[in-house]
Amino acid sequence: MTTSEPTLSPADVRALCRSGQLVGQTAGMARGHVQANLMMVPREHAFDFLLFCQRNPKPCPLVEVLEAGVVEPRCAPGADLRTDLPGYRVYEYGKLVAEVADIRDYWREDMVSFLLGCSFSFEQALMAGGIALRHVSQGRNVAMYKTTIPCAEAGVFRSNMVVSMRPIKSADVAAAVSISGRYPGVHGAPVHIGHPEAIGIADLGKPDFGDPVDLLDDELPVFWACGVTPQYAAELSEIAFCICHAPGKMLVTDFTID
Amino acid sequence: MTTSEPTLSPADVRALCRSGQLVGQTAGMARGHVQANLMMVPREHAFDFLLFCQRNPKPCPLVEVLEAGVVEPRCAPGADLRTDLPGYRVYEYGKLVAEVADIRDYWREDMVSFLLGCSFSFEQALMAGGIALRHVSQGRNVAMYKTTIPCAEAGVFRSNMVVSMRPIKSADVAAAVSISGRYPGVHGAPVHIGHPEAIGIADLGKPDFGDPVDLLDDELPVFWACGVTPQYAAELSEIAFCICHAPGKMLVTDFTID
Repeated sequence: MTTSEPTLSPADVRALCRSGQLVGQTAGMARGHVQANLMMVPREHAFDFLLFCQRNPKPCPLVEVLEAGVVEPRCAPGADLRTDLPGYRVYEYGKLVAEVADIRDYWREDMVSFLLGCSFSFEQALMAGGIALRHVSQGRNVAMYKTTIPCAEAGVFRSNMVVSMRPIKSADVAAAVSISGRYPGVHGAPVHIGHPEAIGIADLGKPDFGDPVDLLDDELPVFWACGVTPQYAAELSEIAFCICHAPGKMLVTDFTID
Repeated sequence: MTTSEPTLSPADVRALCRSGQLVGQTAGMARGHVQANLMMVPREHAFDFLLFCQRNPKPCPLVEVLEAGVVEPRCAPGADLRTDLPGYRVYEYGKLVAEVADIRDYWREDMVSFLLGCSFSFEQALMAGGIALRHVSQGRNVAMYKTTIPCAEAGVFRSNMVVSMRPIKSADVAAAVSISGRYPGVHGAPVHIGHPEAIGIADLGKPDFGDPVDLLDDELPVFWACGVTPQYAAELSEIAFCICHAPGKMLVTDFTID
């Protein structure tokens, strides 16, 4: 994908985070580059968490996994995962205990970092394919819901799938499936189309995460597996300690979308 | 894929292994079903090994990973991985210490089992596509070679890639690439075609594993990533203990090739 306007490079975005100048969302930044969800867990839980991702590739598409104590990923040479995202959330025993812009004070050498594909990537492909995305045009976060779709369990990690919902014109649904299906590394094709109650969503107006969005008469609600799932699984597991990115505040990698 | 002759079911094959009646290779058995390489490592090395597979999907395509101590895989309900393969190899500190038909005497509750895709599956697809495979028609094991192609390292595991070589008529090479490329879960498209010396193979007549095979004037040597790679990496790592299947003696799963 290309863009006609000048844009910050991924390294530029990361440097702005590191210096504390960028603390907001990364949506639309360094267009054409893969953005990634971050999850850090202690080494004792790393095998179980990697297995959870391997068994649930649609909600948990792995971009990269780092050895314990390593903070410079291959997908972002020169980066430091402790400072180069705009914001982080710190959990203890499943409870949010801090939201910070820098985690050097929380860092432990036994932490293992997981980077997971983020839907910002396939949204660019959908828009390039002429499919309007209302939450983007309205500058809102996408609507996300807990469902009754079970994930495969792995050790201490078990949860149902979290999905994101985008209203798509009926005439565009097939194209939206085809286009997103070309990106298995960022959730791929939808997991459900059209009947929220069939996957345990009682009220589209009340998302569990993100912002609600209007659904018009000529549109269907289309549901994709969501990268919040692994965070939700970590929360439910009530492991003693973990750190993840704050919503919408992703790692911008050097990888290009293709 | 279908076959016109009656064939043992995967459960039949596993039962014959368990009772000690089948101790030979599984090539061609329970046709149409996925066969898998087995690797068992102690829990302390399981994260590193899973990471090695995740970083090197062509030689190490994961079919399934089991939690520590679990011996019944989802891909073979009712099976016991300690008895249901025809043969096993036991390694200590990188040295082969036993080759046995049953590993119950060696089993430890901290062992984690990895099942990896095996080329028997795409060979069936190649043959169904009209591509002759000389080692199959000659009843030999495929020729395998250590190369200079580096794998991505993960923790204690590092090695170069092991490849299998099949002589393919020049006119069929493109078809062989297309057909095998449809099976990313069992090594996918070739990693190299035509120049063995470019990947560090000095003499095609002297494979590092398996049997040599003739290369005719109208053929090219075609190289695929090989499932022996993870065993080779485990051997090189000199970890204190690991168990794998004996060459050609696979787990026959209930999964179908498609």
